[in-house]
Amino acid sequence: MATLVDNRYGKARVRVLRVFRESEQKHNIFDFDCRVLLKGDFSDTYLTGDNSKVVPTDTVKNTIYILAQQETFKSLEEFGIILGKHFIANYSWVSGVEAVMKENVWRRVPVTVGTTNTTKEHDHSFQRDREVHNCTVTSNRGKAPVVVSGIDDLLIMKTTQSGFEGYNKCKYTTLKETKDRVFATVVTANWTYNSLNVDYTLAFEKFKQSVYDIFALTYSKSVQETLYLMAKKAMELCPQIEQVHLSLPNKHAFGFDFARLNLENKNVVFQPVEEPSGLIEGTIKRTNAKL
Amino acid sequence: MATLVDNRYGKARVRVLRVFRESEQKHNIFDFDCRVLLKGDFSDTYLTGDNSKVVPTDTVKNTIYILAQQETFKSLEEFGIILGKHFIANYSWVSGVEAVMKENVWRRVPVTVGTTNTTKEHDHSFQRDREVHNCTVTSNRGKAPVVVSGIDDLLIMKTTQSGFEGYNKCKYTTLKETKDRVFATVVTANWTYNSLNVDYTLAFEKFKQSVYDIFALTYSKSVQETLYLMAKKAMELCPQIEQVHLSLPNKHAFGFDFARLNLENKNVVFQPVEEPSGLIEGTIKRTNAKL
Amino acid sequence: MATLVDNRYGKARVRVLRVFRESEQKHNIFDFDCRVLLKGDFSDTYLTGDNSKVVPTDTVKNTIYILAQQETFKSLEEFGIILGKHFIANYSWVSGVEAVMKENVWRRVPVTVGTTNTTKEHDHSFQRDREVHNCTVTSNRGKAPVVVSGIDDLLIMKTTQSGFEGYNKCKYTTLKETKDRVFATVVTANWTYNSLNVDYTLAFEKFKQSVYDIFALTYSKSVQETLYLMAKKAMELCPQIEQVHLSLPNKHAFGFDFARLNLENKNVVFQPVEEPSGLIEGTIKRTNAKL
Amino acid sequence: MATLVDNRYGKARVRVLRVFRESEQKHNIFDFDCRVLLKGDFSDTYLTGDNSKVVPTDTVKNTIYILAQQETFKSLEEFGIILGKHFIANYSWVSGVEAVMKENVWRRVPVTVGTTNTTKEHDHSFQRDREVHNCTVTSNRGKAPVVVSGIDDLLIMKTTQSGFEGYNKCKYTTLKETKDRVFATVVTANWTYNSLNVDYTLAFEKFKQSVYDIFALTYSKSVQETLYLMAKKAMELCPQIEQVHLSLPNKHAFGFDFARLNLENKNVVFQPVEEPSGLIEGTIKRTNAKL
Repeated sequence: MATLVDNRYGKARVRVLRVFRESEQKHNIFDFDCRVLLKGDFSDTYLTGDNSKVVPTDTVKNTIYILAQQETFKSLEEFGIILGKHFIANYSWVSGVEAVMKENVWRRVPVTVGTTNTTKEHDHSFQRDREVHNCTVTSNRGKAPVVVSGIDDLLIMKTTQSGFEGYNKCKYTTLKETKDRVFATVVTANWTYNSLNVDYTLAFEKFKQSVYDIFALTYSKSVQETLYLMAKKAMELCPQIEQVHLSLPNKHAFGFDFARLNLENKNVVFQPVEEPSGLIEGTIKRTNAKL
Repeated sequence: MATLVDNRYGKARVRVLRVFRESEQKHNIFDFDCRVLLKGDFSDTYLTGDNSKVVPTDTVKNTIYILAQQETFKSLEEFGIILGKHFIANYSWVSGVEAVMKENVWRRVPVTVGTTNTTKEHDHSFQRDREVHNCTVTSNRGKAPVVVSGIDDLLIMKTTQSGFEGYNKCKYTTLKETKDRVFATVVTANWTYNSLNVDYTLAFEKFKQSVYDIFALTYSKSVQETLYLMAKKAMELCPQIEQVHLSLPNKHAFGFDFARLNLENKNVVFQPVEEPSGLIEGTIKRTNAKL
Repeated sequence: MATLVDNRYGKARVRVLRVFRESEQKHNIFDFDCRVLLKGDFSDTYLTGDNSKVVPTDTVKNTIYILAQQETFKSLEEFGIILGKHFIANYSWVSGVEAVMKENVWRRVPVTVGTTNTTKEHDHSFQRDREVHNCTVTSNRGKAPVVVSGIDDLLIMKTTQSGFEGYNKCKYTTLKETKDRVFATVVTANWTYNSLNVDYTLAFEKFKQSVYDIFALTYSKSVQETLYLMAKKAMELCPQIEQVHLSLPNKHAFGFDFARLNLENKNVVFQPVEEPSGLIEGTIKRTNAKL
Repeated sequence: MATLVDNRYGKARVRVLRVFRESEQKHNIFDFDCRVLLKGDFSDTYLTGDNSKVVPTDTVKNTIYILAQQETFKSLEEFGIILGKHFIANYSWVSGVEAVMKENVWRRVPVTVGTTNTTKEHDHSFQRDREVHNCTVTSNRGKAPVVVSGIDDLLIMKTTQSGFEGYNKCKYTTLKETKDRVFATVVTANWTYNSLNVDYTLAFEKFKQSVYDIFALTYSKSVQETLYLMAKKAMELCPQIEQVHLSLPNKHAFGFDFARLNLENKNVVFQPVEEPSGLIEGTIKRTNAKL
């Protein structure tokens, strides 16, 4: 009466801090949340409770920590590839592995140099930023792994050089046109590559710089236009980026309604609202993309 | 150099409280968060900033409130169908609409009857439950709308009648087998229908009862087995449910390690952990399903 | 140059699940988050890094689990008293202990009885409610412990029988008077007792019932009036409750502004907003209170 | 039977974005959440529902936006003082005002300069940091306002130069001593001033620098010692800071237990845990403080 048509399982929210020491005092870190899900010949446990092929999720967790210690990697994308290889190599009935990593972004704290007023970045002390660097590595037996990188929770705002005009009006339209509004958004994006030979950390930095440059340096005619230009710029700055998906909420900050109080609106006070928000999404591909 | 391959936009996190009054005092409510995204001929705004076809997200928001007032509906699935019809009927360049609703579940508060110790449910006073009733209605021009219902944040726990034995052991396995463990999970599920003639509220209740009955009344040999049985039971109780997807984290509550302290473990104290968690997913379809 | 004037330390967010078994199948549970902070002769570690008197926070954690297993208790208030006694008895340089517990409230899931349409509460399967039962037990050497009980995250809403009229108007007032509005609030409250001989679980239930009855059964002239009546009712229902502090946000749900669209407002659609909210607080004491 | 012993009310979570324009393109911003609570002769509304003295919370909200537009200020501490003055001056029955502000900290986004690889800070585009700058201004009729500044959500971590040794051992102790551990904490602090003539923004920066310098540049013998040194340093760097309260959770990142797997522990992989955490608090006052 009930057919199992798809299944996967594994461990989620495995938190790992991996320290790489350049020297006793100079450390580089990866701080991330890892999820590894397995596909394969696992239907027995669903249908009959026969667990003989189930690699316990506890073993999946152990393996993540063991490989994190044993292996050297320069990005979590590389670690995701390592994870996929391991499970496929060691369990013949595993057909596919999805490794999703959310890397917390830290910057070095600035410390005072001697008795001066200048600061420098510290060797092993860090401060968390808001944004998160994501990646998903999908490994299937007999195929090359597929790497998707991404960013989340990058909250940016500009206080001028954004407008919205010339849109469709209908009987349900009350919005006023404007040449000058506050534009705030949380950038959520992911992108694929046209190569397996990528400096993923550099690609992430290039993507972020594309976002900053387009957001700050161009007048925004619509969130949509800004979204497209961000993706286009990222492909220009990073030739390995093949396709970009962006999701940009329009986190509104409306002018306060001073008119109800018979007061002039000087356009300096705004009311940010958490909800509702506009939501603009788009997928942009490199023209003549190889994949 | 950069081709727009996909796009959609709209308003998210529109919060609506709709009151239906059976009488002056007896009220029924829908309290929900609504997201409506449009697809269609919108590439100009992305590529050139020409907004002439853009229905402002503010108009989308207004429309949600207007239709919520104007229309009568017995479930948010029905309201999602109404939303899709409206946008397709009124904007010729819209090809598709996705309406996602997250309905907060409220129950009537119990009030004391007179001077007795008994209580009854109140007519217009409510208390929020934890769980959320979701639905996604996808409407495409010229096609029947597709309704997916779901539940989220239903947190359940059983303190016995769950075990995990007979699983694969390898060099990275440290887990001990057990016939008696705590099993806690947050049920996240969605399901599709084989009919357009559905009492969606009843289907939701039947689904929830299937979860309760399987979880409480059967010994769990694995999270996977319990997942499968929940889906199977839901199809038995509700003939319109055609396919079910379930995602069950295994929210671990480990026994505290009293051995390190040379103390006996009496199996009455557990240490719930937020992370990591197992994660078990499965999709189950009615055998000989029509769709 | 810098004097340490106050200090305390301990372990926070210790999660405990304690199962009490009435029989093999019938279980009662306490699921809580516990924080224990110590005061005493601890200044050396602050001033010089001499840790010789520091009871490690890890030991504090171990102790919580050990006492949870070893002791029998009928409420977390009782467990908080046990914790305080232990630290004061075992560490001569500890002068005071604050134990704060946040208990997750679970209800038994309803399971189908045989092949009927009726359900009954299950013996060992539970579903989490939203609200949290708090308590803080402050123990000082040589004094009786002070118990404060509380509730948090109890979200309630009524869709009529609430108004707000006759308030002060000034040049900055734009609010319209109303005899019929939606009133939603998250009840946060705590209360003290005039006795050490209290059934804390019963007091919690009585408090909650007072909230329900006043909220549902009386017309609200202001949030303030409702707050006062809730506290008064709790003192009537539970003679051991001596003083009540209530904090009630006014979680607004405004009527949507249909006038801007030249549409009639039928008073059935509301726009709940997360922020801003009113915030009303009050402390009410039993007249002729003993303490 | 029930006496109202204390009360206050007002508006919470009023979100304000105030833009100060140095020029058309160069903007400075204050982005904050504001809560204003009033005390005074308000008992009637609690006791009888007579609202005639109630300044509606909606009016409080309007006032916040009006004063934010009308006034010029260089810090939210100054704006808090302005708010207090207004309510005391305009409503004779208000005796006291508490204004609490949580300021989101933004930094200017770095934008590419021309076609170079260098960046500069942008004039009106910003990126949110994690940390929050708090302040509470308490104004009472006839008295000077009391300003408390603070910081929250400053998450920092060091990967060496932290230990914990020489602590008290008892039968419930299982912790091992260490000279080298990961130390992560979320700094929550507030401080008072010995002057009404303060550059609050500078004081905030000095406080943050004290935290960075002590955390990074000194070996930590205990969280307590580090806490004390941070407060001491802040008083050295900022002569107006009179008293500091710090609350430092010890957000543990334990070494993974490789021994169970018969694997060497190379001290490079750690398991950060959200809960439980140590919690260390202290209040430090300037010796010979004036207040």
